[in-house]
This record gives sequence, structure tokens and C-alpha cells, in this order.
Amino acid sequence: MPNCIIAQSGGPTAVINSSVVGLLRENQKLNKFEKVYGGLNGIEGILKGNIIDLSAIPDEDINKFQYTPSSGLGSCRYKMKNIETSTEEYDKLLDILKKLDITTFFYIGGNDSMDTTAKLGRYARENSLDITFIGIPKTIDNDLMYTDHTPGFGSAAKFIATSTLEAYFDSSVYINNGIFILETMGRDTGWLAASACMAQYNDKPVADFIYLPEKPFDKINFIEDVRRKFEEQNQVFIVVSEGLRTADGKFVAEFDCVSQDTFGHTQLGGVSNFLRQVILDSGITTRVKALELGILQRCAMHSASQIDINEAFNAGAESLKLASPENNGYMISIKRESNSPYKTSYELVAADKVANNVKYFPVDWINENGNQITKEAYKYFEPLLQGVPTLYTLNNIPQYKVFTK
Amino acid sequence: MPNCIIAQSGGPTAVINSSVVGLLRENQKLNKFEKVYGGLNGIEGILKGNIIDLSAIPDEDINKFQYTPSSGLGSCRYKMKNIETSTEEYDKLLDILKKLDITTFFYIGGNDSMDTTAKLGRYARENSLDITFIGIPKTIDNDLMYTDHTPGFGSAAKFIATSTLEAYFDSSVYINNGIFILETMGRDTGWLAASACMAQYNDKPVADFIYLPEKPFDKINFIEDVRRKFEEQNQVFIVVSEGLRTADGKFVAEFDCVSQDTFGHTQLGGVSNFLRQVILDSGITTRVKALELGILQRCAMHSASQIDINEAFNAGAESLKLASPENNGYMISIKRESNSPYKTSYELVAADKVANNVKYFPVDWINENGNQITKEAYKYFEPLLQGVPTLYTLNNIPQYKVFTK
Repeated sequence: MPNCIIAQSGGPTAVINSSVVGLLRENQKLNKFEKVYGGLNGIEGILKGNIIDLSAIPDEDINKFQYTPSSGLGSCRYKMKNIETSTEEYDKLLDILKKLDITTFFYIGGNDSMDTTAKLGRYARENSLDITFIGIPKTIDNDLMYTDHTPGFGSAAKFIATSTLEAYFDSSVYINNGIFILETMGRDTGWLAASACMAQYNDKPVADFIYLPEKPFDKINFIEDVRRKFEEQNQVFIVVSEGLRTADGKFVAEFDCVSQDTFGHTQLGGVSNFLRQVILDSGITTRVKALELGILQRCAMHSASQIDINEAFNAGAESLKLASPENNGYMISIKRESNSPYKTSYELVAADKVANNVKYFPVDWINENGNQITKEAYKYFEPLLQGVPTLYTLNNIPQYKVFTK
Repeated sequence: MPNCIIAQSGGPTAVINSSVVGLLRENQKLNKFEKVYGGLNGIEGILKGNIIDLSAIPDEDINKFQYTPSSGLGSCRYKMKNIETSTEEYDKLLDILKKLDITTFFYIGGNDSMDTTAKLGRYARENSLDITFIGIPKTIDNDLMYTDHTPGFGSAAKFIATSTLEAYFDSSVYINNGIFILETMGRDTGWLAASACMAQYNDKPVADFIYLPEKPFDKINFIEDVRRKFEEQNQVFIVVSEGLRTADGKFVAEFDCVSQDTFGHTQLGGVSNFLRQVILDSGITTRVKALELGILQRCAMHSASQIDINEAFNAGAESLKLASPENNGYMISIKRESNSPYKTSYELVAADKVANNVKYFPVDWINENGNQITKEAYKYFEPLLQGVPTLYTLNNIPQYKVFTK
């Protein structure tokens, strides 16, 4: 019987390990592969021969690993060369896999990882190699096309909504509370910032304004929004996406960029502090605070969504079930069948269709002023936040398990 | 039958409302006061006549309020004049209380609020007024003297330990992970930063270094610590208190201070970004990230400690039980009777002994190099993190209730 390998790539999420465990459990059921190998640190580690046998790991460790945030097999941001440029890496990788009798490679990741999956699938096909490459979606950004949503997003959205609510109350205790700006991740799309609309009090979002990259940022309108609301209620609570852009497509906080990553993405940071300065300069008030949720929003397993954990698990299981040579270069995707009751199914889409594309937050779900989310979005978000996981704990702190330490 | 009033002051915590509810429930049992009034926005609001009748609020709202973070009665940072300077405010306040037939005033707060409680108690005593002032401790900082710990600290410590653990795994997924600096609150003391030692993996704290204000910060030693550890493991995880000071007592990040609050405290921020720059300047690596937990650490009711919620409740209940004219100007305090089983009792201490004093993290619990917490501290922290509250939720997001909105 042949073997398979699974690896993780790109930024971590709270539920990425659940997909590994779903695949592992499904293989125990179907007995499709002799061994399920784990590639450590994605393609980068596999090329160095860093491979473990997941089938040989005790159940207790695997169960803990499922409820561990971050890429427990390690990750990478490794960009493979185009086949036209050089096939050296491709041949090296395929050689390593062949030696282990691996016939299927599962890659968990976002757009860039689907690009890698598609490239590898194409190379194998063009060279009539007996190996199949399958992608499993993962990103808190929820920006992958051809899937209703991505595993990882629900848990991030839940942390953002909960933290928005808690930060709102915390920042509202004085008679003069001033202005609070909460910054979420979301380089290209506003899904994460938009999920803050689920933080509600008295049936209304606690955020007075939510600004997304999908609507061009206009400084004059922003100052006007804030000034009017501050005069009205002596307090303004703002949620903003790190990826906010002006009409010419430039990041609002681009001046603050530190570096570009290996995929050429601008590393962002600091839009909330930038807007804080804009408000201070406008003279509206001197009481302005900014908070970046930072990596907490993608690793908060302690408040993850159980639905998200289950769907990540199912994505892994379904990808194993559906893996076959004719699906080489495909990615498993989630289809929403109905909202009440919430039902989903799984299907395959070509990874190259997903790769390097971006699913934006629907402009229809943003109000006319470009500063709030409309009720249509609530139905989309609601089911994704369901349930709380029960974690392994020691002294009331979670007990996590990864295979890279 | 006379009435009493309870109010909140200073920075919020996740469990400050539980003390109000404890007092309310104890009064239902003992029937000591006809009505329990709530003063909105502390002394500042009471002076404006912002007072509600908590006894008249439906149980359901009170129950939700107990599990709501932030000061649900509103807060203030109001500094009363010294009696010697002017008694105008004192007379005004006492007049308002007298009109409502209030004979006992409960004030929930930290050092500054205990200062207010002591001043008011003294004024009442010196003028033979029939009114008693009682303090109830509250601060995430855990820096009050004469109490084993303060309600609010356990929940903050739990969030810090959990987030430290999750951030550690999230920031460890690549082959080259660089250096991560996590900043906690704690202006004067290191209790909060120290609690990060409870984030453990393989029986060891995940933080390579924890720096507290109790040990003078030395830049040369810091760079040496970081360089050595980075060479050893190609990754360093650092936890640091916002209140870090140099040997001359100056805040490390004082250059970054924005303003002084009404008590003359320097508003801090940015020590992690400052240390990030120190590391960058040292040339150790260019991969350095900084994260401030910010207000999340004091409002994360979603991951609060149930023990902390219970103790806040008990502090309120016990203060009502023990309130009497001879205890005027006293604060309720928690005494730890034993660790296993964890048992506490409640007693009274003079508020002026507590006021304006600071309980530092024991230097004995810091290692010789001043960069890690010793095991003696674990026993102190462990019981304070116990249990997870079950919250009211709507669409899987907590449902909170405050009386100021």
C-alpha cells in the first residue's frame, strides 16, 4: 500500500491542525494509505528531509494536537520557482516523496499554497508522474475564491467579535471616554474587520464605524464621521482593517511598512495608530486610543469556534476521501447548503483557479457611507461562530502539543 | 431602615461587577439595608446625582451584569481635594447621601480609591457624621498591600498566561522565527508580567525571559541575554512589563509617555516597541515583533477565572456583612489560609494603610539574572486561575449588561 504526506504552509490559524487530524482519522477508517507522513515546515522542511510518521504517534498526542493553535507541523513561506525557470526543486521534492513511496501530497494553506499545489500538480501531470497533489484551504482572512468560507476564519471572527465587545465595554466606563480604534488583520479583504459587527449590545453593533479595504478610505469623510459621532455621544468606537486603502489603491498605512515578504506582499501594521494621529491632528479630542489585536486573533484556541474546528477536520477527512489521480491539483472547498439548519457539503475546485485570486467582502454588505456592515452579513457570520471547544488543561491553562518542539 | 450605596472607581477589571452583585445578594440575605443604591461613574457621578436603585433591577439583568467585564456602574479617576484645602466636595457628597438616607458607602477600587475611602472615613469621623465608608479591593495589577491578592488579578493573569502560550506557538511555526516581545500592563509592579510564567510547555515556561519593574533594566545585559538565547535556539520569546525601569528609577519607555493622568501617574506605552528597536539596533536579527496585550488583559471575561469571579463576589458580600461604624475607613482583604486545598478568609484593614502604598512582586521570586520567575511563584499563581465561567450568549457571542448605557 502506498503512503501519503500532509504539510502546512503560510500563516497559522487556530484550527489548522484539526485538518491534519481529520485526514489521519479518515485514513484509519478507509485504510487508503499505509502511512500518513507529516512534512515539517511545509515544502521548505520537506526539501530538507524533515518528515515524521504521523501514523505512529499515540492517540493522546494527536488529540491534544487537534486542539492546539498554530501550525503544529511547522510552516513556511516558501515560493517555488516557476517550472519554466528551473525544475531542480521539483525534481528534488519528487525524489524525496518517491523514496518514501508517497503517492499523494496534501498541502494545507491559503492562496500562495494553492499556487504551489497547482504548480506541483501540473508538473506531475506533464511528466506523467504517479503522484497527486491536493490542497486543503486554510486562512483566517477568508479570502479564498470558490469556497463559502475557509477553515480558520470562524475562530478568528469569533475572537474579534468577542474582543470588540469586551474592549467596547472596557473603553466606555468613564464620563469622557474619547475615541477607541481597534485594528484587525486583513491585508487585502475586510472579512475579519467586518466580523466585528457581530459584537452587539441592545441589538446594535457596538462599533460605531467599521472600515474595510473594499471601500476606498477618504480622510475627509473619516474625520467628518468621527467628528459628528463624537459630538453626538462623546465617544466613538471604530474597527478598522489593517489593509485599508485610499482610492488610488495605496495602503493607508503603507508609510509604516517594514518589509516585503517572499511573495512580495507588503508587510502592514499601524493603520490604527495612523488614524489616531489623523484624529489628534483634526482637533476633535486628545483622548484617542489604538489597539492592534495582532496575532491573538489567529491563535486564540481558548475561544475558538467548534464549528470551525469541525469543518477543518472535515476538510482534511474529505480531501483524503476524494483524493485520486484525476483530482490532481484540486482543492477541497466548503459549500453552504443552508443556514437554518446550518448545513455544508464538500467539493473539489481546481487549485489554480483559487491560487492568486482574492475573494473580497461583498460591497453589497457595506452601507452606502462605507462605514458599517449591513444586516445581510449577519446571516453569513452567525453559523461560523458556533460552539466552544473543551481543551486539555493543566493548572487551568491549555495544554498544547506540536511536533516541531 | 437605612440605605447603602456602592460605586466603582479606577481602571476596570473583568470581575468588578461581581463584587456589586455579592453585596446585593448578601443584603437580600441579611436585610441590613432597605435599598442598595448604585452610584454611576464613582464619586464624580454621585456628585452629579447619578444614582440608581440596584435593589429594583430584575434578577436576570443583575445575573448578566455579574458576568460582564468593565465597570458596569461606570467609573471615574476623580481625585478629591485634601480636607485641609477644601471641604466643599465632602459636604456636597455627604449632603447627597444624607438625602437618600444612606449610612454606608462602599467603594470598589485600587490604591487611589482606598485613599478616597480613607479621606471620607476620616472626614465623617472628625465631624461625627453617621456614615461609614468601606473599601472593596479591585485591580488587575495586584499591587495592594495587606491583601493576599486583589479581585481582578486572577482573570488578567489567566488571560496573560493563555495568550502567552498561544502567541508563543503562533510565533514558532517557521524555521526562522526571530524574536517576539509580548508586553503586559503593570505600571509599578511585575505581577501581571510574572503571571506569564504559567504558560508552560514540557514543564518549562515558554517565555525565555520575563522582565519586571522590580529589577532594574540594564540594556547591556538585555542585549546579552537575547543574543545568547538567539544563538542557542534561533528564536527568543520575551515577556515584559510596561513599567520596566532603569536603575535610576526612570521608566524605560518614558520617552514615549503621552500624558499624566489626574493622579499624576505617567501614562505608559511602548516598552515592547522600544525593546524591539534596541534589538534591531544591536544587529542580532531583523526579525523582531512586538505585541501589546493592552486592555484585552483586563476585560477578557470570556476566559476569566471562576475563582476570581467568586472571590470578587465574596469580597462584596463580606464587606456588607462586616460594615459597621467602628469599621469606618476600612477595606476588606483576602487572606490565603492554605494552597491545597485552596482556602481563603476575609478580614478588614485600614484603607489608609493600603492607600498610596504598593505591593511589589517578591524579589525572591525573580532569578538571579533578573530575567525569569522562580518556581516558588507557581504555587501562588496556580489557585487564582481556576475555573471557567459560563456566560450568557447570543449567537455564540457573550451577552453583557451594564447600567450606564
